[in-house]
Amino acid sequence: MALDVSTPPRRRGHDPESVLSVAVGVFNERGYDGTSMEDLARALGVTKSAIYHHVPGKEQLLARALDRALDGLSELAADARAARGPAIDRLERVVRQSVRVLTERLPYVTLLLRVRGNSATERAALARRAEFGALVGRLVDEAAEEGALRPGLDPALVTRLLFGAVGSIAEWHRPEHGAPATEVADALVGMVFDGLKRG
Amino acid sequence: MALDVSTPPRRRGHDPESVLSVAVGVFNERGYDGTSMEDLARALGVTKSAIYHHVPGKEQLLARALDRALDGLSELAADARAARGPAIDRLERVVRQSVRVLTERLPYVTLLLRVRGNSATERAALARRAEFGALVGRLVDEAAEEGALRPGLDPALVTRLLFGAVGSIAEWHRPEHGAPATEVADALVGMVFDGLKRG
Repeated sequence: MALDVSTPPRRRGHDPESVLSVAVGVFNERGYDGTSMEDLARALGVTKSAIYHHVPGKEQLLARALDRALDGLSELAADARAARGPAIDRLERVVRQSVRVLTERLPYVTLLLRVRGNSATERAALARRAEFGALVGRLVDEAAEEGALRPGLDPALVTRLLFGAVGSIAEWHRPEHGAPATEVADALVGMVFDGLKRG
Repeated sequence: MALDVSTPPRRRGHDPESVLSVAVGVFNERGYDGTSMEDLARALGVTKSAIYHHVPGKEQLLARALDRALDGLSELAADARAARGPAIDRLERVVRQSVRVLTERLPYVTLLLRVRGNSATERAALARRAEFGALVGRLVDEAAEEGALRPGLDPALVTRLLFGAVGSIAEWHRPEHGAPATEVADALVGMVFDGLKRG
């Protein structure tokens, strides 16, 4: 059929995966609330009128992007729940795996860390993120109960500061330059578990 | 003169200090780029046409708000440059004072931590923030040279992770609830300098 021949070849890079990848980049650059469908159309190289062929809607893209980060955390949470051994070792493993998920899924985790709860989608993501935080909090508590933490440390503050340090990696880590994720994880674990000071 | 009598009393809370305080709240809530002069007028309770009596301009407010955070860091940097003694102790002092500045000037530091360099004002603020980061980096290097750090720690990564942990406090610290700033600083210093693990 002539129609088939005259139809331009499908543009490369507009499968759902690459749409998501472009969208998360625009959300991180302009802020989700500051991103219009027109901005997404421009970034994808399609016209404003064609954008809905490629993008189901801004909020669905946000939900998918946040799930990409949260699914990584859920996998490592399941791994942590299945693990045995001293809580301090399981905590160290969770910290290392969190750094890995953060660096492997950097733009998605960056987006997750900026969510403020402005919509049902954002609030659902914050609830899933809080479940992960609670798991880490339980590991810190268990480590304290097992006598593995230095006395005088407040487990709730330790949990917040530890995950603050992990999350802050998203602000400066660039996979193409600088230290690989395993070195970043080693530095963090070394600093936080054994301390900066020479014993 | 009749005119004086009929002029309504000046509204309370519209001195430059309270304008800045309201503006930084709106910037943090909506994002600077997402804040319009109309949003600021609404938050100040003035009409859209009256806003320029109260607000010099959005970018000047941003510059003043960022200076409020940066001046706090400059003061503690001057203090650190004047201090003597082992670098590890001077570093600990800088960390404690950074937590104090962050908690005392929380909305201003929160705004500073979200700056991405989208304007000349933002780039100038990032340059001042980088000066402070460089000072901390020098202290970590000195502490390493003095043999006070555990061997094997990368000073550049330590600097980033340490200040990531400090900055993350802005995400959850609420002065009216929870741990006071000195306890947060104690927990951070305890965790990072001596380590989580019981020796």
